Amino acid sequence: MSYGGVEAGGTKWVCAIGDGPGNVSATVTFPTTTPDETIGRAVDFFTDASGLAGVGVGSFGPIDARRSSPTWGSITTTPKAGWAHTDVVSALGHALGLPVAFDTDVNAAALGEQCWGAAVGLETFCYVTVGTGIGGGGMANGRLMHGLLHPEFGHMRIPHDTARDPFEGVCPYHGDCFEGLASGGSIRQRWGKPAEELHDPAVWELEAEYLALGLMNVVCTLSPERIILGGGVMKQPGLLELTRTRMRELLAGYIAAPELTDGIGDYVVSPALGDHAGVLGAIELARRAALDGEPRVDLRA
Amino acid sequence: MSYGGVEAGGTKWVCAIGDGPGNVSATVTFPTTTPDETIGRAVDFFTDASGLAGVGVGSFGPIDARRSSPTWGSITTTPKAGWAHTDVVSALGHALGLPVAFDTDVNAAALGEQCWGAAVGLETFCYVTVGTGIGGGGMANGRLMHGLLHPEFGHMRIPHDTARDPFEGVCPYHGDCFEGLASGGSIRQRWGKPAEELHDPAVWELEAEYLALGLMNVVCTLSPERIILGGGVMKQPGLLELTRTRMRELLAGYIAAPELTDGIGDYVVSPALGDHAGVLGAIELARRAALDGEPRVDLRA
Repeated sequence: MSYGGVEAGGTKWVCAIGDGPGNVSATVTFPTTTPDETIGRAVDFFTDASGLAGVGVGSFGPIDARRSSPTWGSITTTPKAGWAHTDVVSALGHALGLPVAFDTDVNAAALGEQCWGAAVGLETFCYVTVGTGIGGGGMANGRLMHGLLHPEFGHMRIPHDTARDPFEGVCPYHGDCFEGLASGGSIRQRWGKPAEELHDPAVWELEAEYLALGLMNVVCTLSPERIILGGGVMKQPGLLELTRTRMRELLAGYIAAPELTDGIGDYVVSPALGDHAGVLGAIELARRAALDGEPRVDLRA
Repeated sequence: MSYGGVEAGGTKWVCAIGDGPGNVSATVTFPTTTPDETIGRAVDFFTDASGLAGVGVGSFGPIDARRSSPTWGSITTTPKAGWAHTDVVSALGHALGLPVAFDTDVNAAALGEQCWGAAVGLETFCYVTVGTGIGGGGMANGRLMHGLLHPEFGHMRIPHDTARDPFEGVCPYHGDCFEGLASGGSIRQRWGKPAEELHDPAVWELEAEYLALGLMNVVCTLSPERIILGGGVMKQPGLLELTRTRMRELLAGYIAAPELTDGIGDYVVSPALGDHAGVLGAIELARRAALDGEPRVDLRA
């Protein structure tokens, strides 16, 4: 049985067909433009496939993932122009006539990593992505994290030493929240260049400081067994190591676990599935929804 | 069937015998002195009771709650003098010959509130206590939060505006972490008096600022369905309301949930069991351990 997966990002969408990392028969990637055009391209891709049992979507957010909500399946208050209150599930479900499973991009990636990657066998762990924005999700006690809505790691508040870094942050809601200070978008605006063109060590020491502060808060709040740290910004050579070192210093040995001291190299890790965690996790979302027999598609009239 | 419950706090211990809030036959409260004396008083209290099926302990921490760990049942790296690496479970279990269940004080309180209080029917929620220190726990997806060890909400990092508040914080590990800036201990040291003697509105506006920042981080990380906010500091009249108001302002409507705007009065709430949440939850820990049939006592030779 084959499933469709969509990693619905704010910059690009990745669609794939298959049932796991060893068996992906087709993929396509296209930029995120308007909702109609973007969703239309996904529909075209999946329409060409035959025998799909369902589609899973891991989406940028915030999203409404409360199954009982009338707006379940939508992207809600995103600042991304044109995308606020976009009902992704209904649009895909109507056009394809298939059940659609829906979660955050980071929860989908976490699921992929738990099935086939860096979180196999773990019950409580996080997946954090540092790209244009910062997002986080994961599993708590063996199930994907939802709660009230879903985690929004990027919008936690962290210390901001304005003497060291007078930049005011880029978050339209909170200014200098975690995402406001440490996202790829903030790096570009603070230094006037995209991350990949910045080679001054001070740039990356500051970035590691913010990442370490944010991840320290994740450790203190959720107590994950591991943190998987993905996203485009983390491709900067040396940044992962700098972040681990600073995190260990900031934790200062208070939480007595070898994972947070000598073992931190196995505690904060890159996604084992690389850039494919999200779309593979989305395929797994679809597979699980089909197994559950739960009517995940909501074909509103 | 009766169970013993211990709320093992850093300032005092509360012991009770019963099976729930409607049926508590005896209680005792005594100050936390040395481990030998304090555990001895709990042993004396439970020895006088007959027919106990087990004892549950909700302890100050950090603790080792990993059932597979050789130091399971211990208080670990606490800065509290004399208490680091105290094996509470073995001491109680040996002396009483009873199975002993063990978790954090805040997880015990969360369990009490989920059984009989402000979290009935919820699967993902937090219990935060603001007393001498700050602790947090709760449930994620219907089970008590553990993960790597257990949450340590008090040690997350929050913004510290040193122009407004030059106080450097009281945490011996992190200085101006959440607990370092907002605990009862920090209030006493910053202003030179205990919280109950401070009536200047500026004191409580600053306290509400820090509490709102910390709780905002809990919302962004864990996405709880509700936050129960207990502890001695929260008895200050008006502080809960100030905290809710500031939290709503800080969240700035980003997370589109009525619980975080007009409904915030039902979202951040006081413990329905008041000061009894911890000890009642500890009784429930013992009851569940007995039902599980799991050998929770570890009578090390």
